[in-house]
Amino acid sequence: MNRIENRAGTLRQLLQGPKIVRLVGGHDGLTAKLIHQAGFEGVWASSFAASASHGVPDASILSMSQFLDVAETMTLAAPLPVIADGDTGFGDARNFAYAVRRYEARGIAGICIEDKQFPKINSFADAAQDLLPAAEFAGKIRAGKQAQTGSQFLVIARTEALIAGGDLDEAVERAHLYADVGADAILVHSKSVHPDQVLKFGAAWDRDVPLVAIPTTYPQVTEVELFDAGYRMVIYANHGIRATVRTVTDTLTALHRAGTAADLEDGLASMPEVFALQGMPAAFKATP
Amino acid sequence: MNRIENRAGTLRQLLQGPKIVRLVGGHDGLTAKLIHQAGFEGVWASSFAASASHGVPDASILSMSQFLDVAETMTLAAPLPVIADGDTGFGDARNFAYAVRRYEARGIAGICIEDKQFPKINSFADAAQDLLPAAEFAGKIRAGKQAQTGSQFLVIARTEALIAGGDLDEAVERAHLYADVGADAILVHSKSVHPDQVLKFGAAWDRDVPLVAIPTTYPQVTEVELFDAGYRMVIYANHGIRATVRTVTDTLTALHRAGTAADLEDGLASMPEVFALQGMPAAFKATP
Amino acid sequence: MNRIENRAGTLRQLLQGPKIVRLVGGHDGLTAKLIHQAGFEGVWASSFAASASHGVPDASILSMSQFLDVAETMTLAAPLPVIADGDTGFGDARNFAYAVRRYEARGIAGICIEDKQFPKINSFADAAQDLLPAAEFAGKIRAGKQAQTGSQFLVIARTEALIAGGDLDEAVERAHLYADVGADAILVHSKSVHPDQVLKFGAAWDRDVPLVAIPTTYPQVTEVELFDAGYRMVIYANHGIRATVRTVTDTLTALHRAGTAADLEDGLASMPEVFALQGMPAAFKATP
Amino acid sequence: MNRIENRAGTLRQLLQGPKIVRLVGGHDGLTAKLIHQAGFEGVWASSFAASASHGVPDASILSMSQFLDVAETMTLAAPLPVIADGDTGFGDARNFAYAVRRYEARGIAGICIEDKQFPKINSFADAAQDLLPAAEFAGKIRAGKQAQTGSQFLVIARTEALIAGGDLDEAVERAHLYADVGADAILVHSKSVHPDQVLKFGAAWDRDVPLVAIPTTYPQVTEVELFDAGYRMVIYANHGIRATVRTVTDTLTALHRAGTAADLEDGLASMPEVFALQGMPAAFKATP
Repeated sequence: MNRIENRAGTLRQLLQGPKIVRLVGGHDGLTAKLIHQAGFEGVWASSFAASASHGVPDASILSMSQFLDVAETMTLAAPLPVIADGDTGFGDARNFAYAVRRYEARGIAGICIEDKQFPKINSFADAAQDLLPAAEFAGKIRAGKQAQTGSQFLVIARTEALIAGGDLDEAVERAHLYADVGADAILVHSKSVHPDQVLKFGAAWDRDVPLVAIPTTYPQVTEVELFDAGYRMVIYANHGIRATVRTVTDTLTALHRAGTAADLEDGLASMPEVFALQGMPAAFKATP
Repeated sequence: MNRIENRAGTLRQLLQGPKIVRLVGGHDGLTAKLIHQAGFEGVWASSFAASASHGVPDASILSMSQFLDVAETMTLAAPLPVIADGDTGFGDARNFAYAVRRYEARGIAGICIEDKQFPKINSFADAAQDLLPAAEFAGKIRAGKQAQTGSQFLVIARTEALIAGGDLDEAVERAHLYADVGADAILVHSKSVHPDQVLKFGAAWDRDVPLVAIPTTYPQVTEVELFDAGYRMVIYANHGIRATVRTVTDTLTALHRAGTAADLEDGLASMPEVFALQGMPAAFKATP
Repeated sequence: MNRIENRAGTLRQLLQGPKIVRLVGGHDGLTAKLIHQAGFEGVWASSFAASASHGVPDASILSMSQFLDVAETMTLAAPLPVIADGDTGFGDARNFAYAVRRYEARGIAGICIEDKQFPKINSFADAAQDLLPAAEFAGKIRAGKQAQTGSQFLVIARTEALIAGGDLDEAVERAHLYADVGADAILVHSKSVHPDQVLKFGAAWDRDVPLVAIPTTYPQVTEVELFDAGYRMVIYANHGIRATVRTVTDTLTALHRAGTAADLEDGLASMPEVFALQGMPAAFKATP
Repeated sequence: MNRIENRAGTLRQLLQGPKIVRLVGGHDGLTAKLIHQAGFEGVWASSFAASASHGVPDASILSMSQFLDVAETMTLAAPLPVIADGDTGFGDARNFAYAVRRYEARGIAGICIEDKQFPKINSFADAAQDLLPAAEFAGKIRAGKQAQTGSQFLVIARTEALIAGGDLDEAVERAHLYADVGADAILVHSKSVHPDQVLKFGAAWDRDVPLVAIPTTYPQVTEVELFDAGYRMVIYANHGIRATVRTVTDTLTALHRAGTAADLEDGLASMPEVFALQGMPAAFKATP
């Protein structure tokens, strides 16, 4: 547990630094600790990962208070700023204002919302990806910024223009509007298998407001390329949960087949390692 | 989401079957789904794993209502009976009776409590492992059984006699007492690196009440050996979370070093796989 | 705490009886107990009262999981069926289906949703009260009915046609549609200060599906009049919280003025009364 | 919703002021708002009232996380410092340290714990009221103070020596010890129907650490008398919930008898009053 008063301030400083700030998607206290241990600068409280962790679709099924609890657990578990994936803001401008007050009051560093209709569905789902009118979404961002009581909390505006089939111009136009009403950063999302879309967006960006990328479908991009293109934050949003699904599946399949846990140990963290991670006040001890 | 009315009845039937019933420890909806997918018969809502997932020690830090939420999430996520690890019962007999009503009302199949002092610490922790007087613990078990409103919910008594340094006679004597007051099964815990302790306990057991083992420190034992020794349930309590810690650590370390996610994909479940697991109502689609 | 398996079935039987079924709005376990103690047949888990209790507007600010917790607390506290006020269903048909599964799994007897746009605002608020297209709302009702796993849980369709400025024909037409897709009851809401609107609706109703009224703005109507007009359920939705606000305000104002609690006792329930209500396992005892 | 950063600091300043600081017991956001509206300086997140509100005995039945949620709701609802009634600290020193971090992180101003055994029962219950050894409780207080990350959060030590049948000397001795290890205030609880006990304690108190009284069984005492006896905080712990029980009982009994809500209005707050309290963004409007 760590002092959480100014995680947002820490993140703001990092965004001014000489390297891209790296966040990794997590969904519980353990993943937050592992993200910290691996050396990253922040945690992305992923809606996709939190939904998968709860066993439900990433389609605005979990409620604001469930997402809030997840983000708080991560904030308490690791001394890193947590940026919450806030879906579409949980309703209209009034709902989002309420959410901002609650997230800020629990020490979350910031929240990111996207300009789609509520309820949203995951951006990579082959389903209707309908945008909210830009002015209406800008109203949400404005309401969120007015709702925060301190100066450091970050409200990040995520445009899904490219996800919804729009072109670069529409994405930039929306981003301009969101920046104008006070967004602290702009996340431009893309499902292209090439990084060109986001790199072009970076080239076209002409504001001081920092840019954020989530290279899920274009993993070949490097942090240096993103930074050079103007991005100041990169979010590896889903790699932790995907690694978990693969390895737990493999481990349990092997266990089921073997009828004994005798041969599993090599692929597992030891009990003492987990004890250390969770801050157990005593060592692990078996009896020889 | 599945009909949850009679998960406890299903588990009772399995315990009468010709093979040992296998539960695997989970800590969220995703792990419950993976346990189901791998072919196991039930889920163990592990206190150790849930605590690790929240980033806190396994030392009665999480509250009853937090544990209850975890067990409910797993019950909703997979069509398997969930046995909740109920630590020491969250207080005295009155607290445990209240817990039983709440767990039963949410469709959890059963709860297991151990005969240590509250607050407990993980049984493998090199710390004081003080037992509750047997009669007092029996009073908890009796209160729990009286509290349930249906006939199927299971209250499992776990003796930590061997963990606390007691001998086989003490363990059997305690187990007898717990069975006498209505425990639906007896979990005999051991931290020995050899299975002999639990196998001897099985040989000495002379009641109809089924036995349960958790082969964490003696993974070399096989399900067949346990069944032959009289055990009717085996719990692989911590393998999921230990696999998670190992793989997420490795994946994030590689990601941090590489500065790109380009080379990670081989070790990860694909996005479509996770979509399928969480029941996404649409397929994954990137843009070529 | 009570057996909760078939609260919905109990309510279904009552709806076939010779008198109108009376529900009272509550917002916590205490109000549920007091509603039971006063002799009513059911509890209305009021969105208005729960929102007021949390100190927030009745405008879809509380989340589904918060409302669910409130309804569960009331179900556990009193042996009465609880009908949850489910706002607009917490999103689209998929969200409502998820909600139905969760409410049913926690033993809530039923849920009522209204045919307004999300986020809704209280029906008596002098603000836009925009209706959802009837077919879209019917899709929610259908999805909810398909989602329940047992046969007894009730999904009640509430039409806000009269609230939104529509006429009797529109209200009846919407109600017909909702009944056609499986609604277990129709709540016709009105903000008229005369009961004529709802009485006329009753006269025009020609289906077996029972009708429900909430006489907030037309309190002069009697239960007998409603029953004779075809209503089978009446909900006194907000009288408990309004009584609370009045008396707590008066009590605290007097206390603040007096600078001592000496003269308050007459207007207060005694400590032993509260002890009895909450099921304290020991009597109250001061020291003379 | 209000800025919550320094509620604890505000309370510390008030404790240095020329008048006794008055807290009133609440159990939800609404009561917090009414306490604020009536002019009091702070809110007591009463275990008794929160338990009654949930419909359960005041016997450590609610969990820490449930109490925490209640205290947070009140902190968000009213611009007043909230002191949480923390029962016995939810376990041992480690559990209390964890609780302090969580309460502080959510902006609660302070927490008060009592020197009884866990699970406690309400101090006015005619049941065993067993004290923890003083040194062990002092260890909890010390652990709590070390756990807080800021300087303003208050940890209040409540001695139940007089409740448990001890004499003034024992109470003073315990209080000395708790003050020595850092308690920010001492609450001396009494179930005497005369204020003499607490007044004598005040006369015997010789430290700078402020005293707190809860005049439930001795309501005849005045704030001026308490202040003159050295008390700096008075908590009217249960008057709100007792007023609620009385008035809701009376209102619902009358409603049940009448078969119409026609004649209730005089005793109720109006709908517009409740709208105003909960911050509804629009006025109440019926249709004439």
